[in-house]
Amino acid sequence: RGLATAKAPSSLLASLDTFTDRHVGPEEREVRHMLSQLGYESVEAFVADTVPPSIRVAADDVSNASIPALTESELFNRARELARANKPVKSYIGMGYHNAVVPPVILRNIMESPAWYTPYTPYQPEIAQGRLESLVNFQTMIMSMTAMDIANSSLLDEATAAAEGMVLAFAHAAHKKRTFVVDAGVLPQTLAVLRTRAKGFGIQLVVGDASAALRDDAVRADLCGVLVQYPDVDGNVKDFGALAQDVHAAKALVVCATDLLALTMLKPPGEWGADVVVGNSARFGVPAGYGGPHGAFFACIDSLKRKMPGRLIGLSRDSQGKPAYRLALQTREQHIRREKATSNICTSQALLANMAAMYAVYHGPAGLKRIAQKVHALTQVLKALVEQSGYTVTNADFFDTLTIDVSGPAKGAAAVHAAALAAGINLRRIDDKRVGVTLDESVGIEEVLKLANVFASAASAPPLSPLHLPPVAASVVPEPLRRASAFLPHPVFNSHHSETEMLRYIYHLQSKDLGLVHAMIPLGSCTMKLNSTSSMIPLTFPEFGNVHPFAPTDQVQGYFEMIKELEADLCKITGFHACSLQPNSGAAGEYAGLSVIRAYHESRGEGHRDICLIPVSAHGTNPASAVMAGLKVVPVKSLLDGSLDLEDLKAKAVKHKDNLAAFMITYPSTFGVFEAGVQDACSIIHENGGQVYLDGANLNAQIGLTNPATCGGDVCHMNLHKTFAIPHGGGGPGVGPICVAEHLAPFLPSHPVVPVNGDQAINAVSAAQYGSASILLISWAYIKMLGGTGLSESTKAALLNANYMAHRLKDHYSLRYKNKNGRVAHELLIDLSEFDKAAGLKVTDFAKRLQDYGFHPPTCSWPISTCMLIEPTESESLEEIDRFCDAMIQIRAEAADVVAGRQPRDNNLLKNAPHPIAVLATADAEWNRPYSREAAAFPMPWLRERKFWPTVSRIDDGELGPCNAETGR
Amino acid sequence: RGLATAKAPSSLLASLDTFTDRHVGPEEREVRHMLSQLGYESVEAFVADTVPPSIRVAADDVSNASIPALTESELFNRARELARANKPVKSYIGMGYHNAVVPPVILRNIMESPAWYTPYTPYQPEIAQGRLESLVNFQTMIMSMTAMDIANSSLLDEATAAAEGMVLAFAHAAHKKRTFVVDAGVLPQTLAVLRTRAKGFGIQLVVGDASAALRDDAVRADLCGVLVQYPDVDGNVKDFGALAQDVHAAKALVVCATDLLALTMLKPPGEWGADVVVGNSARFGVPAGYGGPHGAFFACIDSLKRKMPGRLIGLSRDSQGKPAYRLALQTREQHIRREKATSNICTSQALLANMAAMYAVYHGPAGLKRIAQKVHALTQVLKALVEQSGYTVTNADFFDTLTIDVSGPAKGAAAVHAAALAAGINLRRIDDKRVGVTLDESVGIEEVLKLANVFASAASAPPLSPLHLPPVAASVVPEPLRRASAFLPHPVFNSHHSETEMLRYIYHLQSKDLGLVHAMIPLGSCTMKLNSTSSMIPLTFPEFGNVHPFAPTDQVQGYFEMIKELEADLCKITGFHACSLQPNSGAAGEYAGLSVIRAYHESRGEGHRDICLIPVSAHGTNPASAVMAGLKVVPVKSLLDGSLDLEDLKAKAVKHKDNLAAFMITYPSTFGVFEAGVQDACSIIHENGGQVYLDGANLNAQIGLTNPATCGGDVCHMNLHKTFAIPHGGGGPGVGPICVAEHLAPFLPSHPVVPVNGDQAINAVSAAQYGSASILLISWAYIKMLGGTGLSESTKAALLNANYMAHRLKDHYSLRYKNKNGRVAHELLIDLSEFDKAAGLKVTDFAKRLQDYGFHPPTCSWPISTCMLIEPTESESLEEIDRFCDAMIQIRAEAADVVAGRQPRDNNLLKNAPHPIAVLATADAEWNRPYSREAAAFPMPWLRERKFWPTVSRIDDGELGPCNAETGR
Ligand SMILES: Cc1ncc(COP(=O)(O)O)c(C=O)c1O
Ligand SMILES: Cc1ncc(COP(=O)(O)O)c(C=O)c1O
Ligand SMILES: O=C([O-])O
Repeated sequence: RGLATAKAPSSLLASLDTFTDRHVGPEEREVRHMLSQLGYESVEAFVADTVPPSIRVAADDVSNASIPALTESELFNRARELARANKPVKSYIGMGYHNAVVPPVILRNIMESPAWYTPYTPYQPEIAQGRLESLVNFQTMIMSMTAMDIANSSLLDEATAAAEGMVLAFAHAAHKKRTFVVDAGVLPQTLAVLRTRAKGFGIQLVVGDASAALRDDAVRADLCGVLVQYPDVDGNVKDFGALAQDVHAAKALVVCATDLLALTMLKPPGEWGADVVVGNSARFGVPAGYGGPHGAFFACIDSLKRKMPGRLIGLSRDSQGKPAYRLALQTREQHIRREKATSNICTSQALLANMAAMYAVYHGPAGLKRIAQKVHALTQVLKALVEQSGYTVTNADFFDTLTIDVSGPAKGAAAVHAAALAAGINLRRIDDKRVGVTLDESVGIEEVLKLANVFASAASAPPLSPLHLPPVAASVVPEPLRRASAFLPHPVFNSHHSETEMLRYIYHLQSKDLGLVHAMIPLGSCTMKLNSTSSMIPLTFPEFGNVHPFAPTDQVQGYFEMIKELEADLCKITGFHACSLQPNSGAAGEYAGLSVIRAYHESRGEGHRDICLIPVSAHGTNPASAVMAGLKVVPVKSLLDGSLDLEDLKAKAVKHKDNLAAFMITYPSTFGVFEAGVQDACSIIHENGGQVYLDGANLNAQIGLTNPATCGGDVCHMNLHKTFAIPHGGGGPGVGPICVAEHLAPFLPSHPVVPVNGDQAINAVSAAQYGSASILLISWAYIKMLGGTGLSESTKAALLNANYMAHRLKDHYSLRYKNKNGRVAHELLIDLSEFDKAAGLKVTDFAKRLQDYGFHPPTCSWPISTCMLIEPTESESLEEIDRFCDAMIQIRAEAADVVAGRQPRDNNLLKNAPHPIAVLATADAEWNRPYSREAAAFPMPWLRERKFWPTVSRIDDGELGPCNAETGR
Repeated sequence: RGLATAKAPSSLLASLDTFTDRHVGPEEREVRHMLSQLGYESVEAFVADTVPPSIRVAADDVSNASIPALTESELFNRARELARANKPVKSYIGMGYHNAVVPPVILRNIMESPAWYTPYTPYQPEIAQGRLESLVNFQTMIMSMTAMDIANSSLLDEATAAAEGMVLAFAHAAHKKRTFVVDAGVLPQTLAVLRTRAKGFGIQLVVGDASAALRDDAVRADLCGVLVQYPDVDGNVKDFGALAQDVHAAKALVVCATDLLALTMLKPPGEWGADVVVGNSARFGVPAGYGGPHGAFFACIDSLKRKMPGRLIGLSRDSQGKPAYRLALQTREQHIRREKATSNICTSQALLANMAAMYAVYHGPAGLKRIAQKVHALTQVLKALVEQSGYTVTNADFFDTLTIDVSGPAKGAAAVHAAALAAGINLRRIDDKRVGVTLDESVGIEEVLKLANVFASAASAPPLSPLHLPPVAASVVPEPLRRASAFLPHPVFNSHHSETEMLRYIYHLQSKDLGLVHAMIPLGSCTMKLNSTSSMIPLTFPEFGNVHPFAPTDQVQGYFEMIKELEADLCKITGFHACSLQPNSGAAGEYAGLSVIRAYHESRGEGHRDICLIPVSAHGTNPASAVMAGLKVVPVKSLLDGSLDLEDLKAKAVKHKDNLAAFMITYPSTFGVFEAGVQDACSIIHENGGQVYLDGANLNAQIGLTNPATCGGDVCHMNLHKTFAIPHGGGGPGVGPICVAEHLAPFLPSHPVVPVNGDQAINAVSAAQYGSASILLISWAYIKMLGGTGLSESTKAALLNANYMAHRLKDHYSLRYKNKNGRVAHELLIDLSEFDKAAGLKVTDFAKRLQDYGFHPPTCSWPISTCMLIEPTESESLEEIDRFCDAMIQIRAEAADVVAGRQPRDNNLLKNAPHPIAVLATADAEWNRPYSREAAAFPMPWLRERKFWPTVSRIDDGELGPCNAETGR
């Protein structure tokens, strides 16, 4: 029984395409085998030993009674129903979002391909050269389009990227100058996110015409930076060159939010003095998706690179001297710098950045320019036509956006919007007098005529026909603002322009990357489970892709229903009262949750509470987020057995009780055990006036057995890209929703354009009201198909798989922590320090050698530097787990040879790992290794039939020398 | 100019997602380079030297004026419009077609994956072990389900498979006995195809109750075989054991058409005496698709295996002794046996067979049994419910199909069908009194209640609710007919039942196979061009997949429009008057076309005309098809320059003028040149009373420049899977429509269930009226997106690519044929006999060595045994063509080393090729080769960055010893 129930049909007539059956790896006989190895008669007995009884919820709390299960075909039909509930109205709203034309070859072979969407962030570069190259293409594209020195490999969205720019300017001013000017032309959602973020850092925003603001001496004296939008929200193309000089004279930085397509025609920000350039790359072939996910970008001048947030890929060399890519400047990241990190960003938007980069590879500079010129030419046509109908366009210069004064001809905006809606068109709602129109790649001349006729009819002007088309120019941008410099001269952007070449390039890159399509990725804390096809299919229905986030509510009822259902299910699962889906990563969820806690304290007149207790074992994003929320971090110790030091916690809580804001805890802990004292810890915090933030990265161990509310939390985030099966995308997208107890619900994030939540709400934390809305479909589908029972059974399988693995490895490796019954949670921590002491073998050596066995290594050196954290998830079968354990045990034997002196310390199977094919072809004279090619490549018999090959030799893990991010390839 | 026009937008406002731009490989500068290398100033001048002026059509004959071009997004929208024009009515019609439940993991990762759909038939086993293994799974599955000794790797459809069974029975009787009994329970479309096929062979069909027929002594005396359907068309499950004994007593064969799902519960045909078992595997996860494509199967007893039609995969060993798969028993095929071949089948249904096999891998024997039991249980429920409403079920025993007498309760079938249609349901239309219902995997209990209520309402009986559900049994099949034997015990069917495992198995197999996603596949005569994503996307819209071929016409208007447009475009392209899309392969097209010619002669009282002239250079399917159409083959010689010997043609035409039926010609010829004399040849035939059949395999060289009608033909087939971009699927599906001149139009094939064409029409040649209807969407999209201009430009690019390749290779290899201007057509033939003479190096050695360079070899030893036939197609870029030529030239140098004695004759880079990774890992002591691993694996520098690896060493090309088709894996 137990897991088996979820897998066997209940009657001859029952539906059979049930998802739990396919999602959970172990079959019934495998479950029985694992239980018997662990010495249990039943799954229940095993769970009872694993999860503390004090925190268990009722067996039917999360069951098919509370969350009914749909079959895979029922889900498909339901998703089609929701898709049809979204109205097909075409949006010309602009404001940072466009209708994308996704090249089919990219849609199907990247966005819909598990080879691209299942890999993890490329922390293991030897088995990730494909997406590393593609991310370098992204960086190179951003650098070239913006004319900046360096760019990162994506951020979450344009608004948070702008906020990162602001924070960088503040840091550049050594936190001494606190005034940041936001030009009036900046997108409203960006402004809202800046407001939220400024608060935590104590930055003063001055909003208005930037040049005017700078005339104020007080502003100049305290200025750390200025943000401008180029072109601005109303479509103006302004020359910010003089402003930049002014800002620099004040020793402050210019941050510019911009548009990649416009930059094919406009002088790039790097050529008129911007220090930081941010934006959204989604109009390069990524669907609007009701707000996301999209790859935002961040570029800066060379001198700022060490302060730059996010991941940066650089060109390095492997141990054979072959060029190879890897993450660079990692020392800037939170897991190293913790509360001193420049940013909390971790999961970003790799998949979408890769799509945008591939779009540029496919179109090349000439193709991109043609697209921009077409959009610009059609905008000229629209301008001339609406002027024929008597309207005035208020922005003199433009690329693709017009702001139209409708007060005369149409007697106000209402008539225009009504005519537009009748024609199936959304326009930007500015105010009573003005209407905005933004064109994009998807628009053709017929649609421009249709648009023009909307305006004509609202003005009762004569209808327009193709006969009225005016002549157009390649560019009507003022000469000094035109781009003169070339862009994207690199071979990669000038080679793959036929679909055949493009497809081969995509397949070539993917052949270098290990994903879930190849083998287990047992990364502890990352929950790399099945990303089912059935949950991925609705995502690319056009009815979900072609939706502007600011489309009127009545047009997005399909999205609404899905969102309400997902929120309700997440509340059920966490035991909480309300949910915000806005944060678009786990770290963003942390920041949002802590901001909510601050707002709660403030609402009670306790705005001074600013101490945040965080265990030393916490993920680096925790302290970084706390600092961003304006909190001071006080670390809490762990005991030798890995559990939280409750004495230390109590002492610090009491000590800081007047200022205690929050306690952040990960549960089960990052050490991989369910601590029995979690409720006591939470009580201590509550008794001292604090709120408990539960980092839900490990929620996969809880569902149906316990929940964050029962554990004692007030708020938690979930990583939908871990627990709820959104694929990791090679480094994002993710979603980090937060669920909160009732007293915190009023403070959940709002949005400046589309109202969500009430007047106590904190400001927005993401650009779009529901963050990366389209991928919510994946988690929604996952939950609906498993149903409550399948969700709970999945948790049990995840625990069983991890404990079986711990059992198999425990005689060969030192298992660092377990509970008093000998049980781990859903992951296990093994300590390799003995090998370092005995023979200089490091965690990395074991990890790289695992690559030779065809596996992705577990999480290395985190949360303890000498350890590996291993998480198999429920989706792995016994066979795969055994294969992994066999490999680990064999590597243990290989290490023993080194320890015993049978193999040299500096030239052995581990130190030389991994062994790519090129190494096997080394001439005999140069082989020079005290082991055979055979032992290097095929240490286990099954590798002869099935093996994933690293494509380069070991790449040094240390800091890159000169960061060569632009490879020129 | 020339090609460039198709690639550059016409104005700033023009649409930019134009397909020609992406489909044609060479960019403008590459075209200029190739032209200048060949010494031409313009594309026109080049074409003028290549295609004989006498056969050129006007420049605007095929242009955007005659076939307008849609952009990729316009095509997508048009396809959605057509999809919506098909009505979503659920079919319970049965008759061999079911609603399939395609597991999403298979849908997306096989059917929608270019890694699976772009490879060719696995003639190069070292780079095809993945699909070979999967096809072995298919064979194994068929053998196990049917309990037969051997099975092939798919046939075109159930009806043609049954016809092959009949012909095998006829051959088994040494063509001495001509009577073949068709039981009354056989599907009507199967009977129709048998009638067509019987005619050509002079077989006499006796249709009726088989046991009764056998009581006739005359029948027994002349009996070659009997065909039964199990279960039969009305749903009866009969015991044919006694009949089988009777048939065997008459020394004839029993052919059984059956259903794989039923065989999980019914005693398999192999256990009651069937000699041949055929059927359609599509209900194992392949969409109905308005008739196809589907993988049909053919299994037989061991003693018949050498007469079995189609491809058979067997387990062999590579030169290192490692087990490896390859095509077996190839000596049976037409390219060897020509007019003595057992069948003309060439392209079959590999992709669909692989889907069905993967479905069985995913469900396993227990899962399949559960599905069958559910279907059977629901059928029991339906029977009980309709009986409650007063109906009588006329078939006593059943698996999933009921024939219901409606004459009483509903006073005839009309009322029932009306009620059904009102409920969105199609039932089988049998006659006024009887209605058929077939259930399948997609049906749930709610739908059965809905069905039952259709019957209840037509009988004015009280509505039924879940309360009326009767008890059900696991099986109500009579005990002696129940299956007792186990099936699918093999590990592969009992391992991959989670989606994670399944996905990894699919990816593991595909990693062994070279497809267009990796490199050029320059197979002469196969036209392996881009299979664009945009043309593949509509194929898997559910509105096209879930359509029964016998659904009422008003429900399939989307299909109809597409079919009419495709027919019209193909007529425009060929210059002919009418089109039949029914033949589902090129060979089936040949057979259909020749049968049409015969019918034409008959209609004129010239039914005696039975001589078919065929050049010796013709493809092996030509003579095989001619024989099937009842023609006698007379070969025609070629001249030394490769052209047809017009003297010989004339002499034979005159000699046979009283009986001359047809002349079959491939144009441009299989030798890769446009012969100037084609019109003369056709005149000679016409003057002597014959008709000209043009084999359109090489149509890719003609479109827009000439056409089959202008060349002088009366009928031609097209391979949509060559010229019109249907992907080859690793060995099918294909479509072989025929276009005909006006005088032949009345004779195009008909269909017994859905009327197409008039009363002079020949009988059906395929099971479904439009053959493999769903994949017609691909060619339709291809033509619509290129438009006439893009089609013509593609032809020119194909010619240019081939001529440039010939130019680069001509100083290194002996180019066998060219025209008087030195030009080849769209492919080139190089002769390698000098290397055999000088050093024993064969064509195969060059081919296998090309694998080491990461390329798929060209067509080998056909149409001339010492040659390679190379066809680059228009989709390859200059870079890829140069890479291929560089490889060929380097191999020439490697061969020179052997010729010069610098490398031994029996141990060199060519003879030992290919070199898989495992060979590189060979221990030094065993390396034993007079060259380095480096030279073996990386003979060109670019291979270090990008190389496709063969997974096994050379597999012997000779006949397999004992054919080990069941591998037990
Ligand atoms: C414990 C923990 N907290 C927070 C995070 C941050 O989540 P994200 O990467 O989605 O920002 C992670 C990521 O791995 C984590 O493991
Ligand atoms: C010249 C020629 N004719 C006919 C055929 C048979 O076509 P199919 O394989 O579609 O039956 C081929 C296939 O390669 C061919 O090359
Ligand atoms: O990205 C992580 O730190 O897991």
